[in-house]
Amino acid sequence: RCLHFCKLPGRVMGIRLLRFTSVVIIVLLLVAGALTALLPNIKDDKMPNLRREPKAQSQPTLDSFTLIMQTYNRTDLLLKLLNHYQAIPHLHKVIVVWNNIGEKVPEEMWNSLGPHPVPVVFKVQAVNRMRNRLQNFPELETKAVLMMDDDTLVSAHDLAFAFSVWQQFPEHIVGFVPRKHISTPSGVYSYGSFELQNPGFGNGDQYSMVLIGAAFFHSGYLEDFQRQPEAVYALIDETQNCDDIAMNFLVARHTGKPSGVFVKPVDIRNLEKDTNSGYSGMWHRAEHLLQRSYCVNKLVNIYDGMPLKYSNIMISQFGFPNYANHKNKM
Amino acid sequence: RCLHFCKLPGRVMGIRLLRFTSVVIIVLLLVAGALTALLPNIKDDKMPNLRREPKAQSQPTLDSFTLIMQTYNRTDLLLKLLNHYQAIPHLHKVIVVWNNIGEKVPEEMWNSLGPHPVPVVFKVQAVNRMRNRLQNFPELETKAVLMMDDDTLVSAHDLAFAFSVWQQFPEHIVGFVPRKHISTPSGVYSYGSFELQNPGFGNGDQYSMVLIGAAFFHSGYLEDFQRQPEAVYALIDETQNCDDIAMNFLVARHTGKPSGVFVKPVDIRNLEKDTNSGYSGMWHRAEHLLQRSYCVNKLVNIYDGMPLKYSNIMISQFGFPNYANHKNKM
Repeated sequence: RCLHFCKLPGRVMGIRLLRFTSVVIIVLLLVAGALTALLPNIKDDKMPNLRREPKAQSQPTLDSFTLIMQTYNRTDLLLKLLNHYQAIPHLHKVIVVWNNIGEKVPEEMWNSLGPHPVPVVFKVQAVNRMRNRLQNFPELETKAVLMMDDDTLVSAHDLAFAFSVWQQFPEHIVGFVPRKHISTPSGVYSYGSFELQNPGFGNGDQYSMVLIGAAFFHSGYLEDFQRQPEAVYALIDETQNCDDIAMNFLVARHTGKPSGVFVKPVDIRNLEKDTNSGYSGMWHRAEHLLQRSYCVNKLVNIYDGMPLKYSNIMISQFGFPNYANHKNKM
Repeated sequence: RCLHFCKLPGRVMGIRLLRFTSVVIIVLLLVAGALTALLPNIKDDKMPNLRREPKAQSQPTLDSFTLIMQTYNRTDLLLKLLNHYQAIPHLHKVIVVWNNIGEKVPEEMWNSLGPHPVPVVFKVQAVNRMRNRLQNFPELETKAVLMMDDDTLVSAHDLAFAFSVWQQFPEHIVGFVPRKHISTPSGVYSYGSFELQNPGFGNGDQYSMVLIGAAFFHSGYLEDFQRQPEAVYALIDETQNCDDIAMNFLVARHTGKPSGVFVKPVDIRNLEKDTNSGYSGMWHRAEHLLQRSYCVNKLVNIYDGMPLKYSNIMISQFGFPNYANHKNKM
């Protein structure tokens, strides 16, 4: 038999049906909207190991980097460099690792000269240690770190390009200063640059490290660094050196590949001579290079093996600065 | 009760036991040998997409490459180039694609001037087609192909280095000749080299193709090429051009990344002028470049989209030929 609404006049029933249908449609749309909003975001959090296309959307964690600059006894250089680096494209934040123990950070002066393009955080340190810059700073929000020595000036063009290269090789240390180690017949390793003899793989030279004093690397490696054998920290503290060699060992062990990718800088400058402090940096110590060879051998001992691998890939920017720098006479 | 051999004198039994034991041992060794020989080889057949460490062990399929050189009306250049290329390190075999229809291959002369470092196979073609070189030749045993135009001379140093780079980027076309496409406001694409305006991504230039006339790529792409829409073959046959643009489209679609990696050659030479045949190559035709722009737009149509992506990575060999070519004034 007909249901009760059959008894209603046709027009009233039509309006009621229309209202009912509209309500149903609206409810369905709301539900659909809610479901779409609740869909999980597919985020690629694990450390990628492919050559990747830089992501188009602006995710602050992937499309920008954090500059970590440790400073000791060269505040004039620091401030000069901060003025330059604070405006580098894709910079998210600056973390200054303040190794001037007992000295006030120049925060007041910094703020009085604001506004600034990005936040700058001054991290006061308790002890003047080389490895202070390798802490897993809570202020670090980006996946990429740019680590710079407080006496090194790299052009914005170089940094922008190297950052784009890092985005394609995020598991490597992508930077401007290559170094290598050499095996000797005695089994003892030596550390050096291109003055050292060729490692012996075909023609040309090779590098097995990229120094972190002018390089991009994944912030995950700072996390990893906290989990290394105590002997590594002891070594770095003993020498006040070699934190960068240790990082290259860490990265090489993690990837099983050459730790670094060398990007040839167009404009890189050492500002040491420009400081009023008279302080000229650790690498001028007489024992500096011998220490680094010593570190290489100690680290091989600690890690029970030599993880560093050689590479001869040198990356430059196509068509920059010379628009036809790729041209050949063919 | 004691078994029958107990009744034998002790010495005879000893000898029999010795013989028996020896036979057992020999049989066991043979079985072990057979089992080892029958163990399956773990071969890495899928197309890898990581930056990889070149394998240390000598697997002919990964540690060597096959040169594929198509030739038309320039047999003098072909033979000159064969003398050079036949001795390139890591070369496994040469496949000459013989587009001189009706003309005998110089196999007799080749053999009379033997022995040769590697096998050379002359593939007689039925029709003179540009895309003949893109067949999936059964003689091809290696994962890597080196494709060279029959008028291009690249130094052994460059080839050895580029091959090592390909081994680290096996899914890309790794070669010496970069080109690009440009979008225009009308949506119509144009093809060119560095004379075309900058695509507009920051400073410097970009490339979106690496030409296959002087490049390494994975042999799997030859297989893929056999499975493309008919319209692609028709386009290449119509223009007798653009097979290389089509390959870049194929690779870009496959990887979702820039198809090529540009390695800056130290010594690359065009030997066109050296030929006695008077034939000077397709790219001298008046319509050559316009054809290639035409091809880009047709391929976008066929594939319903523009898959080519830009890159500005230029790779050179660290410390070669200039031992300090990475040095900076810092």
